[in-house]
Amino acid sequence: MKFSINRSKFIEQLNNVQLAISSRSTIPILSGIKLVAQNNQLILTGSDADISVEASIEVNEESQLEIEKTGSIVVMPARMLMDIVKKLPDEKVIIELKESTQVSIDSKTSSFVINGIEADQYPHLPEIDANKKIELPAQLFKQVVRQTVIAVSKHESRPILTGVEFSIETNKLTAVATDSHRLSKRTITLEESYPNSLDFVIPGKSLTELNRIISDDIETLDLYVTDSQVLFALPQINFYSRLLEGNYPNTDQLIPSESNTKVILNADLFEAAVDRASLLSHAGKNNVIKLIIANDQMEVFGDYPGVGQIEEDIPFKSIEGDVIEISFNPDYMKQALNAFGPVEVGIELVGALRPFIIKPSDGSLDFVQLITPIRTPE
Amino acid sequence: MKFSINRSKFIEQLNNVQLAISSRSTIPILSGIKLVAQNNQLILTGSDADISVEASIEVNEESQLEIEKTGSIVVMPARMLMDIVKKLPDEKVIIELKESTQVSIDSKTSSFVINGIEADQYPHLPEIDANKKIELPAQLFKQVVRQTVIAVSKHESRPILTGVEFSIETNKLTAVATDSHRLSKRTITLEESYPNSLDFVIPGKSLTELNRIISDDIETLDLYVTDSQVLFALPQINFYSRLLEGNYPNTDQLIPSESNTKVILNADLFEAAVDRASLLSHAGKNNVIKLIIANDQMEVFGDYPGVGQIEEDIPFKSIEGDVIEISFNPDYMKQALNAFGPVEVGIELVGALRPFIIKPSDGSLDFVQLITPIRTPE
Repeated sequence: MKFSINRSKFIEQLNNVQLAISSRSTIPILSGIKLVAQNNQLILTGSDADISVEASIEVNEESQLEIEKTGSIVVMPARMLMDIVKKLPDEKVIIELKESTQVSIDSKTSSFVINGIEADQYPHLPEIDANKKIELPAQLFKQVVRQTVIAVSKHESRPILTGVEFSIETNKLTAVATDSHRLSKRTITLEESYPNSLDFVIPGKSLTELNRIISDDIETLDLYVTDSQVLFALPQINFYSRLLEGNYPNTDQLIPSESNTKVILNADLFEAAVDRASLLSHAGKNNVIKLIIANDQMEVFGDYPGVGQIEEDIPFKSIEGDVIEISFNPDYMKQALNAFGPVEVGIELVGALRPFIIKPSDGSLDFVQLITPIRTPE
Repeated sequence: MKFSINRSKFIEQLNNVQLAISSRSTIPILSGIKLVAQNNQLILTGSDADISVEASIEVNEESQLEIEKTGSIVVMPARMLMDIVKKLPDEKVIIELKESTQVSIDSKTSSFVINGIEADQYPHLPEIDANKKIELPAQLFKQVVRQTVIAVSKHESRPILTGVEFSIETNKLTAVATDSHRLSKRTITLEESYPNSLDFVIPGKSLTELNRIISDDIETLDLYVTDSQVLFALPQINFYSRLLEGNYPNTDQLIPSESNTKVILNADLFEAAVDRASLLSHAGKNNVIKLIIANDQMEVFGDYPGVGQIEEDIPFKSIEGDVIEISFNPDYMKQALNAFGPVEVGIELVGALRPFIIKPSDGSLDFVQLITPIRTPE
C-alpha cells in the first residue's frame, strides 16, 4: 500500500472516522483506524463496536489522492496518526506500508514510522440490504435528533430508555425519548410513503455522534434498517449503529390531552431565568425550582438553605386558567426550552402533581415535551 | 452597604480579583470576595494567602457606580457572585447588604440573595512602604516573566526553585529560573537607577497570575518589595505576592562561555519539528530526542520501541564547528524555542554531555536559555 494525499482532505475524513473510535476500547484493534487503498479511492474505517464510520476519499483534483500501490493496514493507535498528520509541515502527505506491518508517514522534511496490524484482523461491518432504503431530509432529521436526544436516560438500569425510539408509518417519522422523568416527542413528514411500518431504538450516544457528522451542506440521508443495525448513508460516509434490543414502552397515554392552566411566553427569556435559578439549585441540596402562575403574574422561586434564595419575574404573553404552584428540576426545563430555540411556546398544565407539556405556541411543529413535577414538602 | 453598578465594569474587576481566589482554600473566608463600598469607590479583594488582588472601581460615568450607602461584606463563595452577575438580565446591578450578613443582588426582573461574612473577619493585606518604589516597563516585564517562568521547578523538593529570582542593580533587572535541568535568564535595562541592590524570589504561580492581569494597554508597573512580600501596583489594581524564603543558588557559573559547535536557525521551524517528535516521545517510555549536527546537515531522531520512529531534517542558516550528537527532553527545547518567538536563534554546544545554550542570534536581547542533555545508552 502506498498513496499520497492532500493533508486537509485527509484530516477532514480522519476527523469523521475518529468519532467512532474510543481510546478505551477493550478490543485492542479498535483503537486503530483501517486504511484501504483501492484503485480509485481510499477507505477509512473506525469503530467502537457500537458505532462504525466508514469514509471514502476519491481520486480527484481536490483530494490530490494518488494510489501508487493498493493495499490495506490498520494503523494503531488512530489518535497518533491523526495527531501526526495535523502537525506535518507540508500539504502533501505520503503513507506507505513498509516491511511487516510498519507504516511510514512522510511530508517534506518529516518522516514518521508507526505500528500497524494486518487489515484482515479488523472486524467486518454489518451487511445491509441496499433495497430497503428510506430517504430522510438531513437537516430536519438532525433537528429531530437534537430535540429528542436530550430526554434519553443516562442510566443503564433500563437500557432501552438510553435510546430514541423511531417509528415510521406511511410518510410519518416519529421520534420519542423519555428517561421516565421527562419526555420529548417529534413527528415529521417524509417525502415518500413506506408501506411497511418500522419501529427501532437507536442509542442516544450514536445519534449524538451522527449529528456531528451531518454537516450543514448535506441535504439527504439514506437510512437502512436491519434487525440489529442501522446504516445512515451520507455522501462519502457510511455511519453504522447497533440498535437497542427490547420493547420501547408505550408513551402515548403519558401526554395529557387537556389542561387547566396555559401560558404563552418566549422560550429563551424563560430559559435564561431558569438557568440563573439553577446556579443556586445546583449548589443546594435539592435541584428544584418552584413556578407560580397566577392571573397576571408568573414567578420562579428557589430557596436553598445555606446557599441563598432566588426570585424571578418571568415575562409572558398570556396566561389563561387556574392559579398553579408547581415544582420541577430546572435542568429538564432548561433543556426542553432550549430545544425550541428563541420562539414562542405554550406551557399547558393540569395540576401541581401532574406532568405538564410544552409545545410551539403556533402549532408549526408536531413537537411536544413533557416534564414530571417534583413533589416538595410544604 | 448598597450600590448600583454597570454589570460589564463589575465583571471586569471581578475577573481580576477571582484570579487570586482558590475554590479549595483551607481557610473558608478566602473562598469569598470582600466588597468595600466607600464614598467615591468600590474596592474588591480576593486572596489565596499566597496571592492577593485588590481592585478598585471609581464613581464615574463609565462605571455608573452609585454608592447609596457605604459599608462592607465578604460574599461567599466568590464564584457564585461571579456566576450570578455574568448571567443577570440587565446592564444595571444593585448589590445590598440586608439584615444580618445576607447580600441581595438585583437586576431588572431577577432577584438573588446569597450569604456573606462580616468584612472585619477578612485577613489584612500586607503593609507596604510606599517610598521604596521601583518603576517597571509593564509590557517588557511581562515578556521577562513569560520567558523565565517556563523554567521554574514544578516540584516542592527544593521550594526556592519553584520561583523566579529577580535581582536589581543600579538600572539592570535580571530574572533567572532553573529547575536544575534547564535554565532561563533575561536582563533588561530600567529607566531609572536604584542605589540599593535588591534580590528576591517570586513564586512562579504568582507571576503567571500577574501576567494575566497586565493588559496590553498598561505602560508602567510600580513594584514595592518588603522582606516577605511584593506589591505590583497597576492602574486600579494592587497585586500582592508572598516571596519565597531562602537563598537562590548562584547560576552564573552554569552558563558555558565557549562552544565547539554553533548553529543559527529559525526558532519556530525547529520548534515545529521538536513538537512533532514529542508526539511519539510522549507515547514512548523515554521522553528523549536525539539531535545530530554534522557539517552540512541537522537532523532530529527518535526511536520509541512499541510506538514508532521519527526522523526530521531541520532547516538552518549556518553550522560551524564540530560534529555533535546530543540527546535532550523535547519539551524543554519546545518551551525554550517558543519563548523566543519566530526569530533567528543561535544554539551553542560544547559537547554531548555538557549543557548547551540558546540565544537570540543578533544579540538584540540579553536573554539566554540553557538545557542539560540526557545521557542515553549507546
